[in-house]
Amino acid sequence: MNSSSIVVVGKKKPWNYVTACITVFNSGSKTLTIRGRGSNISRAVDVANLLRRNVAGTQILEIRIVEDVNDAENSRIIPVIEIVLKNPHSK
Amino acid sequence: MNSSSIVVVGKKKPWNYVTACITVFNSGSKTLTIRGRGSNISRAVDVANLLRRNVAGTQILEIRIVEDVNDAENSRIIPVIEIVLKNPHSK
Repeated sequence: MNSSSIVVVGKKKPWNYVTACITVFNSGSKTLTIRGRGSNISRAVDVANLLRRNVAGTQILEIRIVEDVNDAENSRIIPVIEIVLKNPHSK
Repeated sequence: MNSSSIVVVGKKKPWNYVTACITVFNSGSKTLTIRGRGSNISRAVDVANLLRRNVAGTQILEIRIVEDVNDAENSRIIPVIEIVLKNPHSK
């Protein structure tokens, strides 16, 4: 398992991604990045807050906002959020 | 004018908030906080990126994600993003 993993948040309910994140934590990854694009940004923030509230010791290390150029949709620039969390189980 | 101002992002188009932010910058505020709740979080990130791309010298100082308890809507917990920007015109 990598020391860092990424969970990409899409259109499903926030709890689906929360369970995915808990699985990643249990697999021993040191940090976890939650990534959401465009309208999924709100859901990514929601997932981070749910983890912080429900998994004791989860810490937000960093929040980045970056940009993604989508070639498929006439090169619109799409905002992306990346929330880096610390695994409460790792030393 | 305060040394720090808040622009709350709602349902309008991102450019409406970009012009509001530029007005705040021109009034001499040192920092500016862009605040978006729930599904407006994506738009707040979009506004911050548009400012960074179009107003030379705009820097993101801090990104916070917090929670808001809404009493009106049966006390659901709503995620909130706050993006703190540095005014490029201030020393």
